[in-house]
Amino acid sequence: MPKRYIIQNKNLGTSPGTLTYVGKEVSFETKIWWTSYNFDKYEISEVPDLGNFSVELAEDKTYWMNVDGIHEPAVIANIGDMFNLHPLVLEDILNTHQKPKFEYYNEDQLFVTLKMIEYNPYTREAEIEHLSFVMGEGYVISFQEERSRDIFEPILTRIKASAGKTRKNGADYLLYALIDLVVDNYFTVLDKFSENMEQLEEEIIKNPNPKALNELYSMKRELTIMRKTIFPLREMLASLIREEAPLITANTSLYLRDVLDHVMQVIETVDSYRDLGASLMDLYLSQVSNKMNNVMKVLTVISVIFMPLTFIAGIYGMNFDNMPELHWRYGYYVVWIVMVILVIVMLIWFKRKNWL
Amino acid sequence: MPKRYIIQNKNLGTSPGTLTYVGKEVSFETKIWWTSYNFDKYEISEVPDLGNFSVELAEDKTYWMNVDGIHEPAVIANIGDMFNLHPLVLEDILNTHQKPKFEYYNEDQLFVTLKMIEYNPYTREAEIEHLSFVMGEGYVISFQEERSRDIFEPILTRIKASAGKTRKNGADYLLYALIDLVVDNYFTVLDKFSENMEQLEEEIIKNPNPKALNELYSMKRELTIMRKTIFPLREMLASLIREEAPLITANTSLYLRDVLDHVMQVIETVDSYRDLGASLMDLYLSQVSNKMNNVMKVLTVISVIFMPLTFIAGIYGMNFDNMPELHWRYGYYVVWIVMVILVIVMLIWFKRKNWL
Amino acid sequence: MPKRYIIQNKNLGTSPGTLTYVGKEVSFETKIWWTSYNFDKYEISEVPDLGNFSVELAEDKTYWMNVDGIHEPAVIANIGDMFNLHPLVLEDILNTHQKPKFEYYNEDQLFVTLKMIEYNPYTREAEIEHLSFVMGEGYVISFQEERSRDIFEPILTRIKASAGKTRKNGADYLLYALIDLVVDNYFTVLDKFSENMEQLEEEIIKNPNPKALNELYSMKRELTIMRKTIFPLREMLASLIREEAPLITANTSLYLRDVLDHVMQVIETVDSYRDLGASLMDLYLSQVSNKMNNVMKVLTVISVIFMPLTFIAGIYGMNFDNMPELHWRYGYYVVWIVMVILVIVMLIWFKRKNWL
Amino acid sequence: MPKRYIIQNKNLGTSPGTLTYVGKEVSFETKIWWTSYNFDKYEISEVPDLGNFSVELAEDKTYWMNVDGIHEPAVIANIGDMFNLHPLVLEDILNTHQKPKFEYYNEDQLFVTLKMIEYNPYTREAEIEHLSFVMGEGYVISFQEERSRDIFEPILTRIKASAGKTRKNGADYLLYALIDLVVDNYFTVLDKFSENMEQLEEEIIKNPNPKALNELYSMKRELTIMRKTIFPLREMLASLIREEAPLITANTSLYLRDVLDHVMQVIETVDSYRDLGASLMDLYLSQVSNKMNNVMKVLTVISVIFMPLTFIAGIYGMNFDNMPELHWRYGYYVVWIVMVILVIVMLIWFKRKNWL
Amino acid sequence: MPKRYIIQNKNLGTSPGTLTYVGKEVSFETKIWWTSYNFDKYEISEVPDLGNFSVELAEDKTYWMNVDGIHEPAVIANIGDMFNLHPLVLEDILNTHQKPKFEYYNEDQLFVTLKMIEYNPYTREAEIEHLSFVMGEGYVISFQEERSRDIFEPILTRIKASAGKTRKNGADYLLYALIDLVVDNYFTVLDKFSENMEQLEEEIIKNPNPKALNELYSMKRELTIMRKTIFPLREMLASLIREEAPLITANTSLYLRDVLDHVMQVIETVDSYRDLGASLMDLYLSQVSNKMNNVMKVLTVISVIFMPLTFIAGIYGMNFDNMPELHWRYGYYVVWIVMVILVIVMLIWFKRKNWL
Repeated sequence: MPKRYIIQNKNLGTSPGTLTYVGKEVSFETKIWWTSYNFDKYEISEVPDLGNFSVELAEDKTYWMNVDGIHEPAVIANIGDMFNLHPLVLEDILNTHQKPKFEYYNEDQLFVTLKMIEYNPYTREAEIEHLSFVMGEGYVISFQEERSRDIFEPILTRIKASAGKTRKNGADYLLYALIDLVVDNYFTVLDKFSENMEQLEEEIIKNPNPKALNELYSMKRELTIMRKTIFPLREMLASLIREEAPLITANTSLYLRDVLDHVMQVIETVDSYRDLGASLMDLYLSQVSNKMNNVMKVLTVISVIFMPLTFIAGIYGMNFDNMPELHWRYGYYVVWIVMVILVIVMLIWFKRKNWL
Repeated sequence: MPKRYIIQNKNLGTSPGTLTYVGKEVSFETKIWWTSYNFDKYEISEVPDLGNFSVELAEDKTYWMNVDGIHEPAVIANIGDMFNLHPLVLEDILNTHQKPKFEYYNEDQLFVTLKMIEYNPYTREAEIEHLSFVMGEGYVISFQEERSRDIFEPILTRIKASAGKTRKNGADYLLYALIDLVVDNYFTVLDKFSENMEQLEEEIIKNPNPKALNELYSMKRELTIMRKTIFPLREMLASLIREEAPLITANTSLYLRDVLDHVMQVIETVDSYRDLGASLMDLYLSQVSNKMNNVMKVLTVISVIFMPLTFIAGIYGMNFDNMPELHWRYGYYVVWIVMVILVIVMLIWFKRKNWL
Repeated sequence: MPKRYIIQNKNLGTSPGTLTYVGKEVSFETKIWWTSYNFDKYEISEVPDLGNFSVELAEDKTYWMNVDGIHEPAVIANIGDMFNLHPLVLEDILNTHQKPKFEYYNEDQLFVTLKMIEYNPYTREAEIEHLSFVMGEGYVISFQEERSRDIFEPILTRIKASAGKTRKNGADYLLYALIDLVVDNYFTVLDKFSENMEQLEEEIIKNPNPKALNELYSMKRELTIMRKTIFPLREMLASLIREEAPLITANTSLYLRDVLDHVMQVIETVDSYRDLGASLMDLYLSQVSNKMNNVMKVLTVISVIFMPLTFIAGIYGMNFDNMPELHWRYGYYVVWIVMVILVIVMLIWFKRKNWL
Repeated sequence: MPKRYIIQNKNLGTSPGTLTYVGKEVSFETKIWWTSYNFDKYEISEVPDLGNFSVELAEDKTYWMNVDGIHEPAVIANIGDMFNLHPLVLEDILNTHQKPKFEYYNEDQLFVTLKMIEYNPYTREAEIEHLSFVMGEGYVISFQEERSRDIFEPILTRIKASAGKTRKNGADYLLYALIDLVVDNYFTVLDKFSENMEQLEEEIIKNPNPKALNELYSMKRELTIMRKTIFPLREMLASLIREEAPLITANTSLYLRDVLDHVMQVIETVDSYRDLGASLMDLYLSQVSNKMNNVMKVLTVISVIFMPLTFIAGIYGMNFDNMPELHWRYGYYVVWIVMVILVIVMLIWFKRKNWL
Repeated sequence: MPKRYIIQNKNLGTSPGTLTYVGKEVSFETKIWWTSYNFDKYEISEVPDLGNFSVELAEDKTYWMNVDGIHEPAVIANIGDMFNLHPLVLEDILNTHQKPKFEYYNEDQLFVTLKMIEYNPYTREAEIEHLSFVMGEGYVISFQEERSRDIFEPILTRIKASAGKTRKNGADYLLYALIDLVVDNYFTVLDKFSENMEQLEEEIIKNPNPKALNELYSMKRELTIMRKTIFPLREMLASLIREEAPLITANTSLYLRDVLDHVMQVIETVDSYRDLGASLMDLYLSQVSNKMNNVMKVLTVISVIFMPLTFIAGIYGMNFDNMPELHWRYGYYVVWIVMVILVIVMLIWFKRKNWL
């Protein structure tokens, strides 16, 4: 049973604004990629040491700094200095429990944070990864928790592949592409849930057992966590579009509306899965109740048939001196006949009661 | 058990805007009908090859292109070029998981997408078909998934039949007529549900059995899916009317309000069916509980009666040397009398407890 | 089991605007009353034939046409022509499944439709009757489904009785009086429900049985239907008052607010009855569970007492050659004493466990 | 079982505006107190006969008419004439089922109606009393149902006691003081509920029995009724404050906000009690289920132990000629040893299964 | 069982505005700390006697009066006089049942009240402490219930420690820091809940027992109380930020938004815990039901096997003169063989039914 609900807000009581990483322990080093591109060309380089790195932005290019690992406050603080980020932004980047939101801390910088969800088939759990984006004039900085893989690789591949839409458009389109990737991933997770749900449904209908119940329970728990994780995204995107942010062009805004559409679809699907989960629980309980009923019927049928028979046998096992039936010639056979008739009568009665 | 919840969003990770069909596999060819009409005359022709087809719109006519089959991205892209449709429109047409919405992508084109629902009596499931409409000045393009039948035939028949309201009015009235047809169909589906529900109710009251339970469960699941499918339609129509879209005349707007009314009625009916479904589940559980209670009573009555009797018989089956009762002349008969009295006393006691 | 949920929207697929009656089949003829009154005098006449009837409205009088029966589309169409009613109004009058709403189709005509509810004591069901009103300058037309009685008779009686408030005021006050009558009737129905509910409560507490359960279930179903029927009335009246309709005077508006108050009270009462119904279901289930518990206790007590006794009797019924106890002089009596002690010990144990 | 849900709206069908008392039957006479005060002095007198009473208001005094008993429409009508009250106000005063609201019927008169709740320790029910207030320039009229005691006595006592806040301020402060008294009383009722709830909780945890269940059920019912009674008060006070009523000074408005605060606290407490009630029901059901489980375990343990033993005894009770074991020297003792071993094995098995 | 729900609003019926302490009885004396600081230096002193204390505020300093203990109305009244607080403010400070809110009673004083929550590991209960703050130009007064420790010590330590953010900023930042401390503490409490929840989950899955059930129940109760306590904080902070209070600088407002974020996260977490609690209850009931099922199966298996065997043994224990089988040479062995076959057949049948 892994630690699912722990909040671990370690920086309690420290002065607000002190940078502390809040999340899982990680032992890898932070990797940083620096990408610049325009329609004509692109350049991708790893930044081994932030000390030797200086930010120079050309006007006709879009820059993307991808920070893979947020567990080193010093690195984040360093980037914060370079791009002049607000202390509260840095705090939110480092706090993996921060819920999705966007904010304009400085007039010319848009801060967006949201969650990646990945389904772990072994633990049957939805694993959550904390992502943050800062967009300024001509650049995007993306922060992700260090995991086995860089989740933004598809975008990198797309930039390399061809001078397509991403290359044609600016930083706001890049931001959109990153968010879109995250939201598309929710559908993959939902697909996994949907497969599990169908298996569970089949299993519960055919053979309701405690294992299925535990799976159903953990599925409900995962959906609750997932909903809590995704829900704030709706409000976030809706107000991002509504407020007509200066850094976002009308064209990108149209694409963001598409993302919002998808988010709402995800939330509705999660809600309908929760409904279906509740129905499955009802179904399970009824099936168990039915099985119990059948067990009880077997017990009752066997008791109702054999108790009178055993009683009759008991009667003629008594040792009274004066029991005339015992001396009848066919007494024993008469008893057998009586017993058979009794059984037949009872079987008919059970048949009528629909118990057999 | 069919795949009910699968989302199959196949185009994950591909660049946004790439056209991919998302839905059931279909092997038929796309059929396209091109209809033009005004009050005086009408013309209906099948378009065998889009390559030879060119769009020429006369001012005094209304044009309707009905595309039956959306599984060939090339065909849809072709139509998109002809009518100058936005890439996101094409994506939404091809994505059968897109939820109902309307949008003005270009100033002079209204895009509407919604769902047809048909009740399959064999699987007892509501089958969902993805529909899209694009309306421009003087024309409507309708897209439907390829199925066994063209669902818009009634409208075609009406156009052929007489120079009625449809022929008198323009493209916006045609759009209304198409939507109205879809919404009217929801009532047919609800009627089927209502019939099933009554049968179930009767069955659960008379003879609660696991089969009825499974049906109740799948009905609840279908209603959940149906609600999720229809619900966004309300908001969609409401804002279509509220925004006073330039392409829709005041007269048609009045008719659309009528459709909105029907949609709200459908949603309320679905909701009340869900409520009734929950009540039926309660009823089922109580009935099963009652049956169990009766089974237990039978078992208890039989045990309470025969256990003491068998005990008495056992006593006089003992082989002690010194058991005076065994040598009494009427000992055996006394035992019988005692037993009969015991049974009578117990029956009276059960009667009093209302167990018989 | 009557057809409770059927929707029967028969006019599916027909061109919108075609007049069709949607509802229960009726074999009676439509009856029409034409009433005119002012403070000084009144005149009431039956209209046997609409062909010979022409509408002439004097300025100083209020006219009321009461149409009892809406199953003849021809008659409704005829009235529609006379008063110049919009086709959608006629459709709504004929569609008994139309939910409550009001609408200004023409500038000078207010259309209001709502539901009468009557409690049928035999079927224990709330019967719903579709009502529509059209109010214009100086006249009201009321439409009701043909039933055993004219539900607006009390108003007619009041007009005849004295030159009271109704006679003093105009058409808008008449409309108010008609709606008020309908809403007042809801309270009568709720009173019936309340009586049934108390009986049920008493029965479930004293003797929970499946009959009470079925009644509880059908009560919940009726309340669900009733809520669905009345709920839209609130929004309807609220906007009627808010919009300050030109045909309604400030004075009547005050009275309508009173009606709105009553409607809200009805809805809240229905909601609290539904809550209480759910609590009663819980209570029922717990009572059944308690009864089962008691049955089980009886079974267990009897088994725990007699199984060991029967075993002891069985032991001394064995036929081993060498069983010294059998030859003891008081062996038999010792066994009896042991058994009695055993029973006493068990009874004390059950007493301690609170099972007796 | 008292009549809890009855609505008794007796004036159905009568012309709206006819004065009828709707409520419990009362046989006492109406008592009326007439109080006038300012900072310097006060005067309190009973009004034995309204016929001889005339209203004369001095500008520097605050007048309070306290009407104890609202079952005599004639008296209320008389007061209505004196103070020029609107007919709908009089109707609301007489209708004990009217829910809380405020209204300005005439520009210079504020009408407020709400409910007193008192907890009856004998029936364990919340008894509801209908109160109405009319405030005009310099005077307040309070109406209460005739009960065993005058609920406004504390205010009277305060006026007599000293020239405090009440005496310093005007009619609006008096109105506030009256409302505040009613709301404070809700807390007393909630305290009683809270005590009952704790007793119930303890009882259900220690010994779940049907009596506790019935009490829980009736508590839930009372809370449902109480919520329905108090809830509209929130909206009422909120809009009274928001609308900045001309008759209410800014200072009193501040005090009314305090009352609103208390009302919201009452509602939240009622809601949390309802939640806790639902949890208690769950707890009860689980406890009963646990008890049943224990009963079943006892039954099963006893059956599993004694059935095989009885079977073995039965075997050696058979009368076959050729049963060698019967003639073994220590056959009897061997059987006993086998039995004891069997019992020990089973006890260990039960121990392992945690059944003992 | 401690008094969890008691409201104890002792000042019922007293004139509004009379100062009374409403809460737990406390026997300690009130302790008061007077702190003044600016960026350069700080001074902290205990105030032993309010009589000798006079308030003198220098413009370049921030003053903080920390009142530890609110059970002495006289002390609070004294402070009220010094700082010119509104009577209703004093009442709210003394009423430990007052829910979170903020208010501007005087133009230049902001009153804020909220709740500290601490988790008591012994009683497993969330203990609630009533806090109030008054902020004016250059000063903050904090009031807390007297408990084992001063909950604002971390702030004091921070002021002493270094000339950090708190020392750099004014009274509004101090207010923020105090509120932030309280909210951060909520996370600590939630962490405790989360740990308990996981333990419970594990226990219920492995071994569902009544103790776990009681703990689950009390956890649900605590969460209900906690939600009720924290929920109003959201609205309070939101309007504090929205209204752009004159005493709060834009910079501090940004920090308050951060606190609001945290509060919303707390509420969502509490809600998801309540959901998970409900799921756990379902899980528990299903597990108990499963266990019962298993018990029943054991009982049924043992009965089905031994009842027929005992019956057969009974048959041959009968004493009829004419029972040929008894005299067969291998009769006894045949009976044994028949019995063994019977048992094998039954075991196969149970195996097929998945009961073993």
